[in-house]
Amino acid sequence: MQKSNVPIVGLVMGSSSDWDIMKQSARILDEFNLFYEAKVVSAHRMPKEMVDYAVSASSRGLQGIIAGAGGAAHLPGMIASLTELPVFGVPIPSKYLLGEDSLLSIVQMPKGIPVATFAIGEAGAINASLHLIANLSVHDGALRNQLKEYRQHQNELACSMKLPF
Amino acid sequence: MQKSNVPIVGLVMGSSSDWDIMKQSARILDEFNLFYEAKVVSAHRMPKEMVDYAVSASSRGLQGIIAGAGGAAHLPGMIASLTELPVFGVPIPSKYLLGEDSLLSIVQMPKGIPVATFAIGEAGAINASLHLIANLSVHDGALRNQLKEYRQHQNELACSMKLPF
Amino acid sequence: MQKSNVPIVGLVMGSSSDWDIMKQSARILDEFNLFYEAKVVSAHRMPKEMVDYAVSASSRGLQGIIAGAGGAAHLPGMIASLTELPVFGVPIPSKYLLGEDSLLSIVQMPKGIPVATFAIGEAGAINASLHLIANLSVHDGALRNQLKEYRQHQNELACSMKLPF
Amino acid sequence: MQKSNVPIVGLVMGSSSDWDIMKQSARILDEFNLFYEAKVVSAHRMPKEMVDYAVSASSRGLQGIIAGAGGAAHLPGMIASLTELPVFGVPIPSKYLLGEDSLLSIVQMPKGIPVATFAIGEAGAINASLHLIANLSVHDGALRNQLKEYRQHQNELACSMKLPF
Amino acid sequence: MQKSNVPIVGLVMGSSSDWDIMKQSARILDEFNLFYEAKVVSAHRMPKEMVDYAVSASSRGLQGIIAGAGGAAHLPGMIASLTELPVFGVPIPSKYLLGEDSLLSIVQMPKGIPVATFAIGEAGAINASLHLIANLSVHDGALRNQLKEYRQHQNELACSMKLPF
Amino acid sequence: MQKSNVPIVGLVMGSSSDWDIMKQSARILDEFNLFYEAKVVSAHRMPKEMVDYAVSASSRGLQGIIAGAGGAAHLPGMIASLTELPVFGVPIPSKYLLGEDSLLSIVQMPKGIPVATFAIGEAGAINASLHLIANLSVHDGALRNQLKEYRQHQNELACSMKLPF
Amino acid sequence: MQKSNVPIVGLVMGSSSDWDIMKQSARILDEFNLFYEAKVVSAHRMPKEMVDYAVSASSRGLQGIIAGAGGAAHLPGMIASLTELPVFGVPIPSKYLLGEDSLLSIVQMPKGIPVATFAIGEAGAINASLHLIANLSVHDGALRNQLKEYRQHQNELACSMKLPF
Amino acid sequence: MQKSNVPIVGLVMGSSSDWDIMKQSARILDEFNLFYEAKVVSAHRMPKEMVDYAVSASSRGLQGIIAGAGGAAHLPGMIASLTELPVFGVPIPSKYLLGEDSLLSIVQMPKGIPVATFAIGEAGAINASLHLIANLSVHDGALRNQLKEYRQHQNELACSMKLPF
Repeated sequence: MQKSNVPIVGLVMGSSSDWDIMKQSARILDEFNLFYEAKVVSAHRMPKEMVDYAVSASSRGLQGIIAGAGGAAHLPGMIASLTELPVFGVPIPSKYLLGEDSLLSIVQMPKGIPVATFAIGEAGAINASLHLIANLSVHDGALRNQLKEYRQHQNELACSMKLPF
Repeated sequence: MQKSNVPIVGLVMGSSSDWDIMKQSARILDEFNLFYEAKVVSAHRMPKEMVDYAVSASSRGLQGIIAGAGGAAHLPGMIASLTELPVFGVPIPSKYLLGEDSLLSIVQMPKGIPVATFAIGEAGAINASLHLIANLSVHDGALRNQLKEYRQHQNELACSMKLPF
Repeated sequence: MQKSNVPIVGLVMGSSSDWDIMKQSARILDEFNLFYEAKVVSAHRMPKEMVDYAVSASSRGLQGIIAGAGGAAHLPGMIASLTELPVFGVPIPSKYLLGEDSLLSIVQMPKGIPVATFAIGEAGAINASLHLIANLSVHDGALRNQLKEYRQHQNELACSMKLPF
Repeated sequence: MQKSNVPIVGLVMGSSSDWDIMKQSARILDEFNLFYEAKVVSAHRMPKEMVDYAVSASSRGLQGIIAGAGGAAHLPGMIASLTELPVFGVPIPSKYLLGEDSLLSIVQMPKGIPVATFAIGEAGAINASLHLIANLSVHDGALRNQLKEYRQHQNELACSMKLPF
Repeated sequence: MQKSNVPIVGLVMGSSSDWDIMKQSARILDEFNLFYEAKVVSAHRMPKEMVDYAVSASSRGLQGIIAGAGGAAHLPGMIASLTELPVFGVPIPSKYLLGEDSLLSIVQMPKGIPVATFAIGEAGAINASLHLIANLSVHDGALRNQLKEYRQHQNELACSMKLPF
Repeated sequence: MQKSNVPIVGLVMGSSSDWDIMKQSARILDEFNLFYEAKVVSAHRMPKEMVDYAVSASSRGLQGIIAGAGGAAHLPGMIASLTELPVFGVPIPSKYLLGEDSLLSIVQMPKGIPVATFAIGEAGAINASLHLIANLSVHDGALRNQLKEYRQHQNELACSMKLPF
Repeated sequence: MQKSNVPIVGLVMGSSSDWDIMKQSARILDEFNLFYEAKVVSAHRMPKEMVDYAVSASSRGLQGIIAGAGGAAHLPGMIASLTELPVFGVPIPSKYLLGEDSLLSIVQMPKGIPVATFAIGEAGAINASLHLIANLSVHDGALRNQLKEYRQHQNELACSMKLPF
Repeated sequence: MQKSNVPIVGLVMGSSSDWDIMKQSARILDEFNLFYEAKVVSAHRMPKEMVDYAVSASSRGLQGIIAGAGGAAHLPGMIASLTELPVFGVPIPSKYLLGEDSLLSIVQMPKGIPVATFAIGEAGAINASLHLIANLSVHDGALRNQLKEYRQHQNELACSMKLPF
């Protein structure tokens, strides 16, 4: 698959401090040569920008949005309510409740407005990208092959793990 | 205090099914003759109406907004991000997690965008109204007297409680 | 979009008792005329059938798999480990822990094997289907229009909700 | 708004060790030139002083009380039971339960005695002050403008956040 | 031990609705012929009565206070802060959080002000009385014998339990 | 009160590693000149010694037993089942669940066998001793005066706390 | 396998009310023709009988003990501390905390004294028996065959499950 | 008991990073001279190897399998579904939820497929081995004696613990 000139994935987060986790989403997209845009779009401090971002996402050519947020994590759900694009939510670990609040605020969406939710922290950031890729792969044979190779390589790495004794 | 011709309190909730709890907020406002508007404003299914509601709230004369929501309860926080009016959040009990998700989604707001949060369910609905009234009372002697009487009456009721034996 | 002759969505669950929740996934797929196959595939009591199901899913033409499970809910994650197709997990409420166990068992997948997770119970079942549809819509204009209409209709219903007073 | 000669906000906490969190409340009040008094008033170790503090708060000219407490956090609720002034509660993180106990002890107040509750820790301390200010702003145009500017500045800062890549 | 003319145990609770649980405390005290006074003393709705009650408890001849409360359960801790008498706390089950809030609000008292806490609900109410009795038994041989007999009888009942098959 | 020649308090814990917390119980008993014996009595690794300890405690002159334990914390409850003496339980923080397991294992005792439970960690260790002392004070005027002085001193320390600004 | 004349499995529980769950353990043992003794052995109300039971279990010919308990569930752990026989613990659902307390009190045993723990409620009762049988099967070919048939039958039942549509 | 030439215990884990905990299982097996094989067998990244491992375990002579896993910990349950051998599960502490997710994912297995579950972390790793040994001891007098000695030695160590004062 060729790197597009325009981003096809939106990678948004509530604060630049979330980048430490969300860069794992970016790394996966890079590995698959998927062009993405990454920016801070705070549901709470930039609500109008957030609305604009979500409302225009589809017409700007995005094919999916990965959103990370912590605490009362409203960003993924609010974006999902404003676009018909698939939204992938990453619970950022919170300082005191360790991300349990982030997880529940993202996953417990009401009927009709889905947010695909992944694990708290780095694993979730990685898996949000991989799930988005799996969806794009359904109609993109090259990407599907790339995903199969990635998965196979990953499994081979696991198979080759040695215990230190 | 006289009942105003225009509502000074907005009472919003994510679904008409939340009314079973939120009518307790309305009952308190009625007891204090505070004119309010009550409506369904879903953050997720009516995001644009929600934005309009929050953005216009102050200029329409509202002096505070009570918002009830359950599950991934984004309504109070999103309204708070769109108005400088004080927002009072009521966690609606959820079907499986009993409102723990609602509570965390409302109370764990990030720095800068406060939502005053109250107890899960009926007690929270009542107390959101009473707290809003306490704030209005700071500059309204008549309302303050009414609140003092309400509190005194409530305390007298408690004092007169008899145990059934 | 026309109803295909072969199923494009797999709808699986650990027990026939999960159908009470998972039929909500089916209802949404029906509304969108997406042909699906629904069956009991228990990770624990039918592990070999489960492996066969997952391994053959892609070549049989499925474009995504919705998996519901409760308690130590291994079905979504195990299917995800055996196919590169996107997997959508629905936490079924459990008898004593109310689905908290189901949620954590599904969402906390390790790096590399994503399961898109949705809310506990009916809302999650509905949203898993809607998210799958959103993904298919990315490359299917007719389905996208259908989804937009569905979302618009849903939002209009919310807008028309009246409070009972 | 001019700095008053007498404090209009009471800022109380159960122990001097809570200051590390509660100084964030003070910082916000300072930014808005609101004169406050800050002191240790332990519900458990200074119950009579606590009663005196709460009972006299209104006649001494306070317009609101911010109370921080951790563990079995009784201070905000007890003050709220002794004054008709609005009380804003801040859950202080506890050593072992990370503030979950503090949060529940503050937010789950019974019908009739509200405590407006905010997030665990620093975010809650900041937001308690901002909510109090939002309430005072309802009848204070200058303060409202200051709050709008604060919010606008905060939002501009968020908009200007760059991701480190 | 003879039934005294003046109560030696105070049995207090935040609301008459708590009696359904707290009557189990009373039943045990009755079985041991300990004279008690039972009344509603709400920390939140009767704070001054609560202070008077606690402050005068010792001079009125009470030898211990059993306090039941639910939700943000402040009654046991506030009484403990106002008397040097031993206080025994009973977490009343709450409507939505099932008493987890009550338990944490009672047990997590800070250094210096103890509340002896027992199980949520009926078992806690029974055991609070039995623990108080165990303490009084240390210097009361007759009561100690009565407690030993009670315990022995209880153990014999357990030993004679038959399984229904 | 004079220091007795024989211990009147038993201070037991499941492991010597619990001493880091339980030495706070000892410190309080020392301050009040109460003679105690402190030892490791593991319910799980020394069950017979534990039974002997508990069964003989009363006849050896003990007037109360403070027991600290972590994780599946059975020590306080098992001792309570074997003696009519009052038992005071201290939940030791556990490595992964932070003491939530210890708390529930101690406090949720069944009807008939009370363990007075205190906060997780140091505060609980201190308060277990203070509660035991409060109970002994009921029939010991000198100890009661000492406790009153301790409480008064503690309260004065709180009153004199200054915030660092 | 022939039904032995002496029981080889001990099935104990803290109260006859636990039978409603524990009869599921008995049913499985019956299906496999394993002779068991079932009785109430309360750790808290029958501590001496509990010690005798555990200490003599091995010499009386038992080959494993299944123990069910709820709340502060000490029975499985205490029996495990008194015998080298394998102990299988079943968390009985508790009235208010739904068995979360039972689970933690059983599973969080310290190093050196294992209790094999199973799911809360009926599933745990069934699985405790099946795990015990799996262990006995290691050296009993007939029982192993019976277990394989049971498992195969169970899997066939799952395979034949039809969804009701 | 003599060290066998072929392993009789399988010790598997989802990742080499789990070894830090699981080496405690190995250490116990070494102490008892039980020959084991230890390897990484990821349910998610090596599903086919996992199936092969589980399906062949019995015929290769294994008598039990100890499986450690963290987060959405599917390894123990999946192996249990594929072999009639007894499976012993060890919850590995997870980064953000501290092992609560691992525990629930392992212990809440459905009816029919048991996994014997032990404490989170090191204690669980040790106890899984000891429980497996207790089961093998039922028909192996030498191993039973070794276990009794181990237990006795452990108890003597506990009895000799001195408090540092």
